[in-house]
Amino acid sequence: MTTADARLRVRYAETDQMGVVYYANYLIWMEVGRANYCREAGIRYRDMEIEGGILLAVAEVNCRYKSPARYDDEVVVRTWIAEANPRMVRFSYEMTECSSGRVLVTGETKHIFCGRDLKPRKLPEKYRPAFGISPAQS
Amino acid sequence: MTTADARLRVRYAETDQMGVVYYANYLIWMEVGRANYCREAGIRYRDMEIEGGILLAVAEVNCRYKSPARYDDEVVVRTWIAEANPRMVRFSYEMTECSSGRVLVTGETKHIFCGRDLKPRKLPEKYRPAFGISPAQS
Amino acid sequence: MTTADARLRVRYAETDQMGVVYYANYLIWMEVGRANYCREAGIRYRDMEIEGGILLAVAEVNCRYKSPARYDDEVVVRTWIAEANPRMVRFSYEMTECSSGRVLVTGETKHIFCGRDLKPRKLPEKYRPAFGISPAQS
Amino acid sequence: MTTADARLRVRYAETDQMGVVYYANYLIWMEVGRANYCREAGIRYRDMEIEGGILLAVAEVNCRYKSPARYDDEVVVRTWIAEANPRMVRFSYEMTECSSGRVLVTGETKHIFCGRDLKPRKLPEKYRPAFGISPAQS
Repeated sequence: MTTADARLRVRYAETDQMGVVYYANYLIWMEVGRANYCREAGIRYRDMEIEGGILLAVAEVNCRYKSPARYDDEVVVRTWIAEANPRMVRFSYEMTECSSGRVLVTGETKHIFCGRDLKPRKLPEKYRPAFGISPAQS
Repeated sequence: MTTADARLRVRYAETDQMGVVYYANYLIWMEVGRANYCREAGIRYRDMEIEGGILLAVAEVNCRYKSPARYDDEVVVRTWIAEANPRMVRFSYEMTECSSGRVLVTGETKHIFCGRDLKPRKLPEKYRPAFGISPAQS
Repeated sequence: MTTADARLRVRYAETDQMGVVYYANYLIWMEVGRANYCREAGIRYRDMEIEGGILLAVAEVNCRYKSPARYDDEVVVRTWIAEANPRMVRFSYEMTECSSGRVLVTGETKHIFCGRDLKPRKLPEKYRPAFGISPAQS
Repeated sequence: MTTADARLRVRYAETDQMGVVYYANYLIWMEVGRANYCREAGIRYRDMEIEGGILLAVAEVNCRYKSPARYDDEVVVRTWIAEANPRMVRFSYEMTECSSGRVLVTGETKHIFCGRDLKPRKLPEKYRPAFGISPAQS
């Protein structure tokens, strides 16, 4: 199983009055994680969208909050593919605070490959290896 | 089962370059929904936090994306309590686009009642009725 | 001078660990204010963008922070047009906390009318009255 | 004049349906820029807030938008201090797209040094050198 690690630092904007990171922001970090995964797997998500006309429409998110991140923490977002076929991909994530190794959040997102019209569309063969999908799979 | 409906209009800021609402923003709308639920149940979440020293720390989020919301859409966030006891509460949500009745998102969030130190703390009795918890429950 | 008032309630997501609204969020409220201004002036910004192919690209923002907004505050965003011609429009804003009348923020934004390619484009005549521009103005 | 450069990559969440970065997000990047400036000047903003009880309350923002940033662009936020005394500090920013050197945004923010109560408070002497303020200045 291939994993990709993205590193980020918590922004003041991402905190709320509880003094910790607001819960929706971890979904933004998941996006940072999977863009980084794609980049390390050899494709830029931007190019796939602009040149390939392929978008990843999100279908499902699950997120478990273990421990809160705080302002200025350095966070690692570890991302890997849990499942993929020419119609969909499911990413898994584990986020940890760097200095302590404390797990912050674990979660998954499921995405449907779509065209620009947001209608489902099979992933073109040239993008399949990056997602660990056999080009011949139907 | 009591439900509470909050109404909001999609902001430009909430869209992304796919032309639809960015997926993390639905979690913000869930927050709008449950603040509204509490208000209709007779407590202001702000007062519970400031006067009661009780915070709702999120433990889990699940979200299923059915159909995308777009800029300027009017959205209803229907919220109800799926489960509650003096230690935790689980909210359920259904979001629909007003003019069409189209379901956008369904989801749940699970929260632990905490003190200001973010450590678990039993919900004081005076707040229990609003969450449908019997004051005597331990 | 015509003004338009939009009303909103501060979301938890909009606060930061200082316990007040994060400063960038007032720009989102300005957007809410000017969308509301357009609506009251008889045009939906969404339609102007989709049907008319006209976008308002922001060129400048100035914002003075007088007093902080807090979670759950009700806020009125008063918006008016300070200057407009077929090439640009400048909006002014004053935001107040409803219950106290306290002024939170005053500011301006300057926008250039553009086509979908984000290149400057003169505002079509049919949209001019909404911005208080004489249709004949060149 | 000392400058500090922070580097970031545009997130999908930061774009809007115009296909470019939403205008309020540049203020978040300004925050990233000045946190980085402080770090390079030898203080962590987080420590100043937690240990020193000093907060930077924003009083004014000015922002000129020259050219839009797009998803996945690498951006450099150059930050420097335009003016500072024991009561306030004014930061200046210039953001450029890395690969082209294209200027995206220039701007300033003015901040008042405050205590935890958000009331103005003179900057303690130990933090002054980081802001280029003479410790003896009154």
